[in-house]
Amino acid sequence: MKSIEVIAVPGIPEIEPGDQIADSILQALEQSPIELTRGDLLVVTHKIVSKAEGRVVDSGDDATYRAAVEEEAQAILRRRGDLTIARTHHGFICANAGVDRSNVPSGRAVLLPLNPDRSAHSIRMQLRRATGIDVPVIISDTFGRPWRRGQTDIAIGVSGMEAIADFKGKPDGNGRIMEATEIAIIDEIASAADLVMGKADHIPVAIVRGVAWEPGEARAIDLVRPPGEDLFR
Amino acid sequence: MKSIEVIAVPGIPEIEPGDQIADSILQALEQSPIELTRGDLLVVTHKIVSKAEGRVVDSGDDATYRAAVEEEAQAILRRRGDLTIARTHHGFICANAGVDRSNVPSGRAVLLPLNPDRSAHSIRMQLRRATGIDVPVIISDTFGRPWRRGQTDIAIGVSGMEAIADFKGKPDGNGRIMEATEIAIIDEIASAADLVMGKADHIPVAIVRGVAWEPGEARAIDLVRPPGEDLFR
Repeated sequence: MKSIEVIAVPGIPEIEPGDQIADSILQALEQSPIELTRGDLLVVTHKIVSKAEGRVVDSGDDATYRAAVEEEAQAILRRRGDLTIARTHHGFICANAGVDRSNVPSGRAVLLPLNPDRSAHSIRMQLRRATGIDVPVIISDTFGRPWRRGQTDIAIGVSGMEAIADFKGKPDGNGRIMEATEIAIIDEIASAADLVMGKADHIPVAIVRGVAWEPGEARAIDLVRPPGEDLFR
Repeated sequence: MKSIEVIAVPGIPEIEPGDQIADSILQALEQSPIELTRGDLLVVTHKIVSKAEGRVVDSGDDATYRAAVEEEAQAILRRRGDLTIARTHHGFICANAGVDRSNVPSGRAVLLPLNPDRSAHSIRMQLRRATGIDVPVIISDTFGRPWRRGQTDIAIGVSGMEAIADFKGKPDGNGRIMEATEIAIIDEIASAADLVMGKADHIPVAIVRGVAWEPGEARAIDLVRPPGEDLFR
């Protein structure tokens, strides 16, 4: 029976600047019945990564919040009311340049990690040193989409695997060579992980087990479509 | 331990026009160790729904394929080379107006179901009559996104549940009232299901178990952002 499992990691404490996320994950796993296994993937919401890296700013009033958004934005694409769609310095296109006040102590806002791919790599390396198991790490965030209501979790950082599952040129179920089918598998994994994390539950880490992933050195930032390829900028 | 499971339903035969998808699913389940359980969700790729509904056309050469795309499109948004981004008659914005030649016998192309929400409803009702269990049904398709490379599976039809998990106005983990957090949970479920379906594996149906879903009467077509709300048309 082919199946995948998405397992919430309980017991991650409130993260403070300077904390090592990998240590927090290992301690939480030790106190749980869950064992990290070869083949697993780990999804970590960016929010705890940003907190550990000190990427938190004051945002006591709307003016300081707006200033943080301006600071994080490299370019503003659209504005409507309180909503700003911006391109961040990394290149991500998202609401409010990733500056987020939910699940943050009042009067504070969390920014995106400076380099989420590097953050993922660092967590993966620390976990590998501690456990001997090389588990790919995905760092997720909740993004809106043009054209569709509602938000979904996507990958803003990754380490240890390919980001795209490429079916181009492979035979499909009918033996026909498939046309362009490049699945953004790290985004699908981030979305799957969000189903156990929930937004109000304070579960910032999930293990995803049973996915057919390919080892690789992809970066999530490379999923951002180059402006020249993009038909909708 | 909070977890969700995504289970591939094996043994769905090649679907022909006039087939009842619900019957095919029930027969496949009977021959498998998997039992449909209260609380489960069912994800069905649109391709078998379209085949059952006879939404298959000849597409032996590029001209007939292009004609099918024109026929399915209500408006063309962008063209580049062979790629057309169109709004379908339903309102979905997707590549080639949803006309797809992969996983289809050579010389044929599959169109989107005429009304995927109604198709989902019909499958759900048939399953409920046969099993006594009311399982929400999501019909999925693989869509590209502006700004991000790679495709992900999203929901184009749904029956029996809310489409959006709305955390607006609910306290977050810090007791702070959350700002706009509306999770397109049916899209996240479709993405999770794709992780066991794969593109070359011919697994068109998956059970998703353990998700905290809300019963409801949402339609997937309502996830399409109204043009007036959309900042990127």
